[in-house]
Amino acid sequence: MTSRINLFDREIGRLNDVLCAINLLGWDARTQMPAGAARMRGAQVATLTGLARGIATGRAIRDAIAMELDGLDDRPESALRRRALLDTQAAIRIADRIPESLVVEAAALKTEAQQVWAEARTKSDFALFQPLLERTVLIQREIAAAIGYAAHPYDALIQQYEPGMTLAELQSLFARLKAGLLPLIDTALGRPQPRLDVLERSYPVDAQKRFALEIAQKFGYDLKRGRLDVTVHPFEVSFTREDVRITGRFRENWLPGGLFAIWHEAGHGIYEQGVDPAFTRSAFATDIINLYAVGGASFGMHESQSRLFENRVGRSHRFWELHYGALQTNFPASLGDIDMETFWRAVNVVRPSFIRVEADELTYDFHVILRVEIEAALIAGDIAVKDLPRIWAEKVKTYLGLTVPDDTQGVLQDVHWSAGMIGSFPTYTIGNVMGAQLFATARKAPEVAAGLQSGDYLPLTRWLNHHVHRHGRSKTPGEILRFATGSGLDPAPYLEDLSEKVALLA
Amino acid sequence: MTSRINLFDREIGRLNDVLCAINLLGWDARTQMPAGAARMRGAQVATLTGLARGIATGRAIRDAIAMELDGLDDRPESALRRRALLDTQAAIRIADRIPESLVVEAAALKTEAQQVWAEARTKSDFALFQPLLERTVLIQREIAAAIGYAAHPYDALIQQYEPGMTLAELQSLFARLKAGLLPLIDTALGRPQPRLDVLERSYPVDAQKRFALEIAQKFGYDLKRGRLDVTVHPFEVSFTREDVRITGRFRENWLPGGLFAIWHEAGHGIYEQGVDPAFTRSAFATDIINLYAVGGASFGMHESQSRLFENRVGRSHRFWELHYGALQTNFPASLGDIDMETFWRAVNVVRPSFIRVEADELTYDFHVILRVEIEAALIAGDIAVKDLPRIWAEKVKTYLGLTVPDDTQGVLQDVHWSAGMIGSFPTYTIGNVMGAQLFATARKAPEVAAGLQSGDYLPLTRWLNHHVHRHGRSKTPGEILRFATGSGLDPAPYLEDLSEKVALLA
Repeated sequence: MTSRINLFDREIGRLNDVLCAINLLGWDARTQMPAGAARMRGAQVATLTGLARGIATGRAIRDAIAMELDGLDDRPESALRRRALLDTQAAIRIADRIPESLVVEAAALKTEAQQVWAEARTKSDFALFQPLLERTVLIQREIAAAIGYAAHPYDALIQQYEPGMTLAELQSLFARLKAGLLPLIDTALGRPQPRLDVLERSYPVDAQKRFALEIAQKFGYDLKRGRLDVTVHPFEVSFTREDVRITGRFRENWLPGGLFAIWHEAGHGIYEQGVDPAFTRSAFATDIINLYAVGGASFGMHESQSRLFENRVGRSHRFWELHYGALQTNFPASLGDIDMETFWRAVNVVRPSFIRVEADELTYDFHVILRVEIEAALIAGDIAVKDLPRIWAEKVKTYLGLTVPDDTQGVLQDVHWSAGMIGSFPTYTIGNVMGAQLFATARKAPEVAAGLQSGDYLPLTRWLNHHVHRHGRSKTPGEILRFATGSGLDPAPYLEDLSEKVALLA
Repeated sequence: MTSRINLFDREIGRLNDVLCAINLLGWDARTQMPAGAARMRGAQVATLTGLARGIATGRAIRDAIAMELDGLDDRPESALRRRALLDTQAAIRIADRIPESLVVEAAALKTEAQQVWAEARTKSDFALFQPLLERTVLIQREIAAAIGYAAHPYDALIQQYEPGMTLAELQSLFARLKAGLLPLIDTALGRPQPRLDVLERSYPVDAQKRFALEIAQKFGYDLKRGRLDVTVHPFEVSFTREDVRITGRFRENWLPGGLFAIWHEAGHGIYEQGVDPAFTRSAFATDIINLYAVGGASFGMHESQSRLFENRVGRSHRFWELHYGALQTNFPASLGDIDMETFWRAVNVVRPSFIRVEADELTYDFHVILRVEIEAALIAGDIAVKDLPRIWAEKVKTYLGLTVPDDTQGVLQDVHWSAGMIGSFPTYTIGNVMGAQLFATARKAPEVAAGLQSGDYLPLTRWLNHHVHRHGRSKTPGEILRFATGSGLDPAPYLEDLSEKVALLA
């Protein structure tokens, strides 16, 4: 009975099953689980990760790939299959290069480092975290060396999150962004500041959720194949195309924190729901390098979808012309006396700040740029971990003009390094840039443009489904971008959008 | 680093981790998951079950046991460790005897049989389900033969759920129950029926939940280490001692369906929360035969705890003397005109009925007895599957005096057979009997008796923690029962309790 099942499909299916179970263990830990159970949950994730790695690098899947490639013909219908086999083989080779001992060491360190980081952040004491980060950097250097690279060791780490991207390409991208963004920031800061007190009034959480979900569904997020839960740090997670969950966090006295985070996560969710259902449980919904069940092509491409719905749509002037009335209806006491223009200006405030996740659109990428510069220098050995608080402060001064008051609001603010994720920060800016490219191209389609004018976002989502989502991981982010926009990574549309916005804010 | 970890502990820990992940996949599917994701969830459970079986019967765990037993000394401190090793070895031997092909066949059949059963039940058409059940019986006969038995093949199947129990002992237990229960039923039915309309008034679901959970917490269920979710068929599931979840279902117009199910599941939950925390992730929280992460000693011992809180406490006269006022406060519109005595009689109605899960305390065990008689005869080959509707109807007539109207209310009502669970029904009656034995003994402790009088249930729960819960699976149900009550399985306390209740109903 089982012998009829293709061996490669069987092994990838089993791997995807285990990875989906890991996704569930994580989702549950962050949304449902009693807090006391965290330690045992860590053991469960570690065991399943070990089993997943065992399947991903096991003899069965290697043999299946080799055997099937051997017999594969050259017809065009076989191209997709060949791609699945070759991509998986390439990913296994990368996983192979990282010795098991290093994987185990990194996993063990992560558990410890996250605890110490959380404590250090609470106490605003980088020295506590320093030895853990030093070990993390050493391990990540070893991983970079094991994976291999042509120009810079940081390239090897970026590959894990954004295939095809290099530090050199990032540096050229960042140079263009700096040149384009700095004058925009100067212009914006020269104007009167909007009324932010408007956003700090009383916004009952249930009404926030209701309004945010209504819009998310207009964007195309399908609640029948998803759900919304409350968490501390919002995220999206997918299991199959039929089960893609988002999370949010709501504060009664800070309206944007709830709304825009939901639309951000809904953008991720729309991507996962839009992957070709035929790719479910296949190589094209399985990230072997990160041992992660996901349909999106890369971290950057994923972020392009979340930022597109959050910012290109959700912070646009037209969007609030269409929906501000509904928002007022939901919060008559707090918004009855506020006009749309005042509200729109408030949610588009430009204001250099210390915390990346709270940054506005114009200053956000500088938070990314400074982290990437630090990461690359750390991995190359050009700077030492112990000097990070000083280096961080210098860069924040240079790029944002601010004086960092303490480590909590500085070098300790992000969870990424404690999780061993060095090389993932670039994907936030890549997402901003690609999101704007895709949006600019999509808007050229008349039905998309008409929908954005009338408040019907499904033509936009269908365009994204066709050009981006459905491909899953069967194309690289570069291929998808070229298929969708006809060009490579290009910050021009992003800078144009922001420039238009600054002009509107005049 | 890893070499310091004991090899047996490592393997059992890994096994328990995978089983906890399976528990979570099941809990999520029944409480949170979008319905469309069911098929893929089935694949995930199947893959993890295969991996769990691989660990449970793998070379690593066998070698670890053999090696450690070899070096183990005879000191009394080593007894518990020896027990963990020997119990695991014995369970692996049983698992070994069932060929992999039979396990795979049973798993595949289960998926198909449950779908067909659900359809057959909806259409009330046993003929649809018959071929699936025939295959199920054949496979279960093979499993019984593979496990082995001394007197009757059914004994081998009971072992999986209630170690040490045999058909012969059940038959003698059932004979005593029949003799004791039949006259009580006659007496009860000779009395005026209570007012059941009282229970069908409007009971807003939120207030049902609130009241049910308040009482569950008084019983000792710790919500900080647990949670309540809504499902179709209520159940309890544990991960670690710190994470034990219960579920319920609520209908606005049927009050007992919500309340007593919560207290039933809370009884299971209190058991799991009370297992020695040192047994977490150990052999004493791992059921290797059923590949199930659980702390309770057996299905029957588990049911003893749920039935104890549901019936011995929750349906007692004193309980409602103490708490009926609070119930009235929660539902003033529906209960304002109803006195406590009327209410107590309604929730203790004696009324032969077709559906086991809705049966009252006096007739419940006859539902079990008829199923066990049928199961044993099926496995022995004394009756044929095709004759089941007729045999079922005959037994319902004999034991309950009712004429079965259709298959839905007859032979198709339970999910168990479609899931391949032949041999588990006895544990419901064993639970009733053991629950009453434990309750009778516990009540002899003055602080327990005083607590039951005053509405402080924690002395009872502490008694159960000490005598039952904390042992986890480190003792057999028989050993625990003897440790706690000084005797073996004995229906006398159960019959006495029910007899007292019938007298009170006079």
